[in-house]
Amino acid sequence: MLRHKLLTLFCSLVLVHAEYTFETKWFEVPLDHFSYQRSETFKIKYLVNDTYWDSGNGPIFFYTGNEGQIEVFTQHTGFMWDIAREFNAKLVFAEHRYYGSSMPFGNKSLDREHIGYLTSAQALADYADLVNHLQGDQIKPQYPVIAFGGSYGGMLSAYFRIKYPHVVAGAIAASAPVHMFPGMAPCEAYHRIVTSSYNIANANCVANIRLGWPTIRNFTKSANETAWLEKEWNLCHPIKNSSDVDTLVGFVQFVYETTAMVNYPFPSDFLRPLPAQPVRVACQYLAEPLKGKELLTAIGKVLDMYTNYDHKSKCMDYQSGGDYGNLDAAGWDYQACTEMVMPMCTTGEYDMFEPSPWNFTSFSEDCHKKYGVYPHPEAARIEYGGDRLQAASNIVFSNGLLDPWAGGGILNSISDSVKAVVIINAAHHLDLMPQNDADTEPVKMARDCHKKNIRRWIRQFHGQPTEGRDYRC
Amino acid sequence: MLRHKLLTLFCSLVLVHAEYTFETKWFEVPLDHFSYQRSETFKIKYLVNDTYWDSGNGPIFFYTGNEGQIEVFTQHTGFMWDIAREFNAKLVFAEHRYYGSSMPFGNKSLDREHIGYLTSAQALADYADLVNHLQGDQIKPQYPVIAFGGSYGGMLSAYFRIKYPHVVAGAIAASAPVHMFPGMAPCEAYHRIVTSSYNIANANCVANIRLGWPTIRNFTKSANETAWLEKEWNLCHPIKNSSDVDTLVGFVQFVYETTAMVNYPFPSDFLRPLPAQPVRVACQYLAEPLKGKELLTAIGKVLDMYTNYDHKSKCMDYQSGGDYGNLDAAGWDYQACTEMVMPMCTTGEYDMFEPSPWNFTSFSEDCHKKYGVYPHPEAARIEYGGDRLQAASNIVFSNGLLDPWAGGGILNSISDSVKAVVIINAAHHLDLMPQNDADTEPVKMARDCHKKNIRRWIRQFHGQPTEGRDYRC
Repeated sequence: MLRHKLLTLFCSLVLVHAEYTFETKWFEVPLDHFSYQRSETFKIKYLVNDTYWDSGNGPIFFYTGNEGQIEVFTQHTGFMWDIAREFNAKLVFAEHRYYGSSMPFGNKSLDREHIGYLTSAQALADYADLVNHLQGDQIKPQYPVIAFGGSYGGMLSAYFRIKYPHVVAGAIAASAPVHMFPGMAPCEAYHRIVTSSYNIANANCVANIRLGWPTIRNFTKSANETAWLEKEWNLCHPIKNSSDVDTLVGFVQFVYETTAMVNYPFPSDFLRPLPAQPVRVACQYLAEPLKGKELLTAIGKVLDMYTNYDHKSKCMDYQSGGDYGNLDAAGWDYQACTEMVMPMCTTGEYDMFEPSPWNFTSFSEDCHKKYGVYPHPEAARIEYGGDRLQAASNIVFSNGLLDPWAGGGILNSISDSVKAVVIINAAHHLDLMPQNDADTEPVKMARDCHKKNIRRWIRQFHGQPTEGRDYRC
Repeated sequence: MLRHKLLTLFCSLVLVHAEYTFETKWFEVPLDHFSYQRSETFKIKYLVNDTYWDSGNGPIFFYTGNEGQIEVFTQHTGFMWDIAREFNAKLVFAEHRYYGSSMPFGNKSLDREHIGYLTSAQALADYADLVNHLQGDQIKPQYPVIAFGGSYGGMLSAYFRIKYPHVVAGAIAASAPVHMFPGMAPCEAYHRIVTSSYNIANANCVANIRLGWPTIRNFTKSANETAWLEKEWNLCHPIKNSSDVDTLVGFVQFVYETTAMVNYPFPSDFLRPLPAQPVRVACQYLAEPLKGKELLTAIGKVLDMYTNYDHKSKCMDYQSGGDYGNLDAAGWDYQACTEMVMPMCTTGEYDMFEPSPWNFTSFSEDCHKKYGVYPHPEAARIEYGGDRLQAASNIVFSNGLLDPWAGGGILNSISDSVKAVVIINAAHHLDLMPQNDADTEPVKMARDCHKKNIRRWIRQFHGQPTEGRDYRC
């Protein structure tokens, strides 16, 4: 359960930049692009900034919105804003159907009888129609369009180029786990990377986290120690039964995982604010071999760092499953239950968590109970190709090696124009964030590669000769 | 009306070869691949011959079935049968949903409340699932798949490679009018080629055909001459009013057009049997300048050649709109009314027909009356790219220059791997027909190119080096 909820978090940085101003627009799309059985239409939201646009033939930078309000991605994809002037680009951020305000059936959109048109293919078809509109509905459009996206948005930007290469000239796909599908990546990859992130910070940290699980379970067997823990961790809800214990354990795991995902070198205003290098901060509390109450006290400090860094939280709501802010957990949970089937497991051996195998059968039954649908584990592979992208072109897959989602990313270039850019010591789509004084050379180099590739794609679109390749990009 | 009906004919040769034996199989597909709102499934038919297959790693030759019973295409795509042994290939012919026996709702499939899932995208998704099944549902399949198709089937084979390049290694797209969409090709292109085909046979022929229209209209103004014409042409139905006159004129035009489309160098067992080079035969009747009754008598002989070459017809059923044999007029008419909007017109200037402009508004209203839908003239362009195929690969577009549909075909190579093969003096997808003693050098060369390209795609699939290109292919 938590594992599925977790997925909703996989693109969640909110860096609000007041200077990012935009016009809010709406575009009408068919409910169903692929049949003519239903004729309803609805409107998706998109945000536009054309301050720097050369409307003669400047490019359109198009963010393929993912699982949340488009404002979230608009505000946190600083890289697009940073380079708009240099490219004389128009910026467009399109909201994904069934998220934010782009609801086909208003507040009933996520009801079982309406949610079925929430698919990536329909979203991509929305984007293709919108790009066609932005290009003036021309047979031969004059504006090259470059797709950008991070996380699920990165998957969409890559898929957009794969399925609509006549619509977008190229795609920057940051931290896109396009391999995180059955049979393509080991199910433990995500948690293995989480663990290695903590291990880099401090080997004792991993040992302590590992010992934390039996310690929590032991303490919660006795009423006294449970009461102590509830007080020590300032829990909002008492621990009444073994189900609550499982929820608590799941929440602690979620905190470790999410902290690893957003382990940025600068303080970031996450769903909750976090310090710079939060994994290192967490591991400072767990730097010495600990056990018993000392261990739990230290873990409590990690949880407090994650949930209460701004000191605004009254208590720790371990039953919340995490705070998703502007991201729409429900929509993504449905997508994970239909086409975006991403197996996850823990082994306890290659990672620091309690072992939990991937069980497709129970996952599938759970989906059926919730939504009346069974997942299609092969859907994304057949529709988008998995790792068989030899025939694709003009895509950069970038991945930070400290990002757990890199476990499902493309880390080796597939061809001369489907390139992998790997960023050591970087977390989840760091390269899409605005430039920052704390930026390391690798992330600067990645952004430099993106610009070189974008420039190449634009020249290609205009039929201009392209320079020799930078061997690093 | 006739113009739309005519479209149903655009892939219609039936050459029954008893030696083409196959196993009939069925494959379950979802009614809707692109939403999870409906969970119904149904079965599409596919025909298999693996006589020559090297099941170790031989290729699968996959015919992307078009608007009719799959047996029709299986029987008339002799080229696939001719080369199966040489390539150790398995032959698979897949039936298009809503045609032949592949009906999602049995004999109610074409009813307004069920027909909406008849789209090319759904059909391609059926084929992608089927290929995945034939490849053993593998992440890394061992069998390269080559798509073949003629006419609308050729559009589908090209679209299959464009949208699913991870599923098919390459596509032979014969006589695929992928440009026959609004704004891409002049609406008169089709009829201009028809005219030039008759002009090559005999310039007087065109003048006579042109004079035929006012002559028919004049004669049918008087009761006596109408009676004479009904008898002379052996019409099944009397000409009672001006609407009947229009229908008759439309039928005569249809005969000229269709004869040009299937103007093969050998006798062919068409929907109705025809002699070799039927345009030349028709023009022999119209070789001298004629007028009045003489002209109408001569035109009557052309109509008789088309409708009664086997002397089995009792009278000429001009109100039939043509005999579509195994092709499903209703299904294609719906597709033409939704996504396959192919503007057609006659000018009377560049062609030998009565002027008839393309009127999208009335076409659109007509569609709405019939099916409750309005056409989406930009749908195919946005979904498949029109002529913006620079990013595609491994497709051969072949066109016979005497084929009216070549007016919407790709006649110039787009890139090193999206190649045009032009066949002079050839009609509609002649290159896909079985080899014949009457084959000219150009068609032999086209088939030779197809084999070279297929070999290249197969080697590429297996990661083997490919030889230098033949400059002609």
